[in-house]
This record gives sequence, C-alpha cells and structure tokens, in this order.
Amino acid sequence: MGKHYGQNCPVAGSLELVGERWTLLIVRDLLRGPARFQDLRTMLPGIPPKLLSDRLKSMDKHGLVAREFYSEYPPRVRYALTEKGRDLGLVVGALAEWGARHLHRRLAALHTECGHAVEVMPYCPHCKARVGPSSITIPTATPAEVEPPRMRRREPRARRMSGSGK
Amino acid sequence: MGKHYGQNCPVAGSLELVGERWTLLIVRDLLRGPARFQDLRTMLPGIPPKLLSDRLKSMDKHGLVAREFYSEYPPRVRYALTEKGRDLGLVVGALAEWGARHLHRRLAALHTECGHAVEVMPYCPHCKARVGPSSITIPTATPAEVEPPRMRRREPRARRMSGSGK
Repeated sequence: MGKHYGQNCPVAGSLELVGERWTLLIVRDLLRGPARFQDLRTMLPGIPPKLLSDRLKSMDKHGLVAREFYSEYPPRVRYALTEKGRDLGLVVGALAEWGARHLHRRLAALHTECGHAVEVMPYCPHCKARVGPSSITIPTATPAEVEPPRMRRREPRARRMSGSGK
Repeated sequence: MGKHYGQNCPVAGSLELVGERWTLLIVRDLLRGPARFQDLRTMLPGIPPKLLSDRLKSMDKHGLVAREFYSEYPPRVRYALTEKGRDLGLVVGALAEWGARHLHRRLAALHTECGHAVEVMPYCPHCKARVGPSSITIPTATPAEVEPPRMRRREPRARRMSGSGK
C-alpha cells in the first residue's frame, strides 16, 4: 500500500493501491498470463528482488494477484491477475496509448482487424456510443457510499472529467 | 522526472513522466480548468509546498502544463494543462473508473445524458466500435521509431494487451 492521499476520490484511492513504482509494470506483464517470480524478474530488469517480492505481497493482500500452485511436488508457485487486477488493463492501456502518442509517436496500439490505431476512451455501454468529456459526471460521494471511509477532504461539488476532446 | 525503468515500452515511458506521487492528482485537478499555486494547495491538502512546486516545474519541463500570466501588474501566474497534459484525462478516467468499480463500488462515472455508468475502454475511431482486448496489438518498436532511444531491454515480440473482457 502506497501513500495515503486522504481524499474521498476514486482516482486517489486507485493510486494508493497501484501508484507505487513498478506495480503497474507488474500488472502489464501479468496481462500476458500467469508468471513465476523468476519470469517477472526477467521481464523487469532492474527491479530489486526484495522490492518485487514486497510488491507481489501487497498486490496479493489487496486482491490484485493470486498465487497459483502449478506443481505440488515440489511446490511451485506462479502469480496470476485476479479479475480486479485484470481490470487494471484499461489503466495500463490508457498509459500505453498516451505514451505511444506523446512519447513514442508512431508506436500506437492497433486494432488487429483493421490495422488502425486504437484509442482508449469513455464509452457508454447503455447507449453503445463513445462519450465526450463534457458528458461525464462523477457524482459526489456521501460518507455512507464510500468504503473505507476517509473524509478528511471536502468535496465541493460533482467533478467533471475532461479529456482530449477526441 | 521519476524513476527510469530502462524499457522500450510506452507504458514504462509514461510512468517515468507521470508515475510519481501526486502528479496524476495535479492533472485531475487541472482538468477542471487552470489553477493558481494556492488553488492547487487547497485542492491537494497534505502536499508539501516544495513538492508541489517541484512537480509543477517538472510537468512544465515535460510539456504537461504551461504557466499563464493572468495579471501583468502585479504579475500573477496560473497553471493550465497543455494538450499533452489534457490527454492524460483518459489515464485519470481509467483510474477513476477502476477505483469506482473496485474500491468505492457505487461511485461510478455517469453518462450525463442517460445516467448510466460510463466505462473507459479501447475504441477504434475508424470502425466506430469498441475493441475487445484480444483484438489489440501493440507493435514492437525498432530503435529508429523510439524517441528518446533507450534500448537497454529486449522486446521479444509484439505485446498483446488484455483487459477485463467487458
């Protein structure tokens, strides 16, 4: 568990769980499938083993990964994303798209079927349509709706998200 | 600029720029509109002023925010997101959606027009359709395509993104 921001906000809450260094890169690599500790060390050159171990422990504790025994004798373990962890694929995808557009320029994620660049954007499954940034409202929480309750910050009004407008 | 991961990957590249504590919360608050230093301190209780100043300096240096003079006499400055910074709205939106779903449960982002929950998901503007995680390919970079070049890591093959499948 990383820094506590003491804010009643789903963005801050998410960052408390996944905002520490390396965590989202571990998620990125596990999105390809379960991996052993040694696999992760190979995929993440530069990560100190103790830190990788701490991150996996914390991710296990918060329900992002689960340990799977793939051999009973001798006991061998690998790590797999839970559904909660797999759902971070959208955060990783948004970071990938932003990095592709603004840092790597031509290295965009592609739609396999048509070959065009994929964007990550707000979508309303009910209307089956993309949603512009001006049409999104994040309602204000009341203490009873939030778990765990952390109300050190005032929430003056509904927060409106804004994006690139694309 | 935060930790260097030494990987040729847009996710790692993005996290090097925005993965440090508080940075994405500053982006979140500036998505509502330009703000003065004091406004940001009020919106981010708990942030040490020196750290906020360092973050804004770094974000300015990397083109995420720009300083605007809104008064010449006396000189007064406020901070506004650039287009590159506004595009991080999708990362913030993905974190908000994940947090709403998995931490705050009922605190989802809503489509203002229909009132249903909005999801952040991959979308192909060419096909005008949402794209499933199995239909996304992130092509492997060649050194000439990457800027700045940081090739300390092997990239074995195209990386496939995977998400919640929803």
